[in-house]
Amino acid sequence: MTRSFEILAIGNAIVDILATSDESFLLRHGLAKGGMMLVDESTSKRLYEDMGSTTIVSGGSAANTIVGAASFGIKSAFIGKVKADEAGHSFSHDIRKSGVHFDTAFATTGPATASCLILVTPDGERTMNTFLGACQNLTVDDIDEEKVRSSSILYLEGYLWDPPEAKKAFRRASDISHAAGNKVALTLSDAFCVDRYRDEFLDLMRSGSVDIIFANQHELKSLYQTSDFETALAALREEGVISAVTRSEQGCLVVTREETLAVPAFPIDRLVDTTGAGDLFAAGFLAGVVRGLDLRESARLGGLAAAEIIQHFGARPQTNLKNLASENGIDLPA
Amino acid sequence: MTRSFEILAIGNAIVDILATSDESFLLRHGLAKGGMMLVDESTSKRLYEDMGSTTIVSGGSAANTIVGAASFGIKSAFIGKVKADEAGHSFSHDIRKSGVHFDTAFATTGPATASCLILVTPDGERTMNTFLGACQNLTVDDIDEEKVRSSSILYLEGYLWDPPEAKKAFRRASDISHAAGNKVALTLSDAFCVDRYRDEFLDLMRSGSVDIIFANQHELKSLYQTSDFETALAALREEGVISAVTRSEQGCLVVTREETLAVPAFPIDRLVDTTGAGDLFAAGFLAGVVRGLDLRESARLGGLAAAEIIQHFGARPQTNLKNLASENGIDLPA
Repeated sequence: MTRSFEILAIGNAIVDILATSDESFLLRHGLAKGGMMLVDESTSKRLYEDMGSTTIVSGGSAANTIVGAASFGIKSAFIGKVKADEAGHSFSHDIRKSGVHFDTAFATTGPATASCLILVTPDGERTMNTFLGACQNLTVDDIDEEKVRSSSILYLEGYLWDPPEAKKAFRRASDISHAAGNKVALTLSDAFCVDRYRDEFLDLMRSGSVDIIFANQHELKSLYQTSDFETALAALREEGVISAVTRSEQGCLVVTREETLAVPAFPIDRLVDTTGAGDLFAAGFLAGVVRGLDLRESARLGGLAAAEIIQHFGARPQTNLKNLASENGIDLPA
Repeated sequence: MTRSFEILAIGNAIVDILATSDESFLLRHGLAKGGMMLVDESTSKRLYEDMGSTTIVSGGSAANTIVGAASFGIKSAFIGKVKADEAGHSFSHDIRKSGVHFDTAFATTGPATASCLILVTPDGERTMNTFLGACQNLTVDDIDEEKVRSSSILYLEGYLWDPPEAKKAFRRASDISHAAGNKVALTLSDAFCVDRYRDEFLDLMRSGSVDIIFANQHELKSLYQTSDFETALAALREEGVISAVTRSEQGCLVVTREETLAVPAFPIDRLVDTTGAGDLFAAGFLAGVVRGLDLRESARLGGLAAAEIIQHFGARPQTNLKNLASENGIDLPA
């Protein structure tokens, strides 16, 4: 008998290496604050040598999201590629121990498990430098058809467009999912990522390959190449998909052709590190959607998960999100 | 010309692997809550396989203390043994980037860099399981005489009694330090550690080998084999050393033959993880002492550093402690 899942995520499997940093570090290394930059191994090494004392935690955008979903009690699975090295085993240990089904074969040759050097400035903003490493070895062969077919929602990250082979895996998974009558969700990931793959992302939306879109305001403006948020929103409304647009402390907008719902951000005590804010918003939103909550309640759940993650270092929850939701008056239906 | 330091710490060089845990994990594995247990490699592996998603940060008791001191702006150095493996390089990177002078030769053969599996229960208490690994290769040959001589305070951890050769290094360093007219401080480390080496620790105090003692109330009661705190305090008062006795949320007592000062704990918003509370107390206290603050002000500085560390995961400060002290009205003299 095949196991079925509520959400299956496919993404780059990455270990995060975080350090606090001042603004001068970003300037000195020419890093675009708040963005994600792809770096080669030697650049990664140079940045590491210069950055401060580190905290190492499993990361990866879609991986963070699926761990968040599992923390809400959602039956969750992940597909992503690590190498059989120390970091790869650590990634595998962490995601499984978070309650996520994960059995993608480890790479035994080729580059090391991916790492992301994250500089967290005093304002809590994070600037990311990713060495893709073993992620480049994710191929269509890693897509378990049966698993995709038996998952109600397939969640994909825009970052998958970066490693060349992963894009094919992405398309393949999306086709299988839709053929089985499931839903496909996509995060646009990063404004620079949108800039690299704008036409392809628009095509995914317009061809019906994705049903739910996650974006922040920068990504949305980049998608429609406008500096005016309202213009971008108007264009988004016409795409015929469900969109959740996050706006940091201003909360989020859920946009469909029919309506635009504004949902306020969840209150926090102290902003520590924004790493994973978008990832965890997606976790809460999808947890709500897959359990049949309405869009507004789903967005509230997204805000709650994002609020948890930005109050500590790293992008994996340190609190059980199902309990946290319950304490805040949102009980997920079984 | 020799560089001089204000504080030189010698201790076990350890990488911490933290996970949140429920009480049942401790019961299942027979772990004594709040303590530090020495484990062999296979036990360490078994615990790791069962524990949850991890956060990896550099640790080691005296290493945490010296990083805390550096964060107060104190000229600091550390001696400790890691292997030339991934974890060892990470430890070395982190301590140096924290502003601590560190040049102990890496072990190239023998066991891996030490690791400590730390289970953090919902009450914030931590339970530690240490695989000593490469720490067992710290010997008298690693003690740089000139460095010990030129450091105003030598800080040693009781845990150094565990790896057999390190004890000799400890004694050697203490002798050199005193011959040069410097002060020697010792933390009793852990109640079980005190139980293992009670007579030797008492002898260190009574033979004049140490001038300043750090202990928590459990360690103190273990030292004098009494369940009555006041009895233990009375015995401590007769030892003729300066003692700082920490009592969690009840603050600390500074005990000398002449007086006993009670200093309240520093207020916190949220207890997350007590790992490093004692280590950081020692950092603040010694920073005050070495810069000529009186014992009460030094203890306040200890409380401030401990309060920072228990409000996040891991035992290395995430805030500049000199600035934090300044914001709270304590400016360290230059």
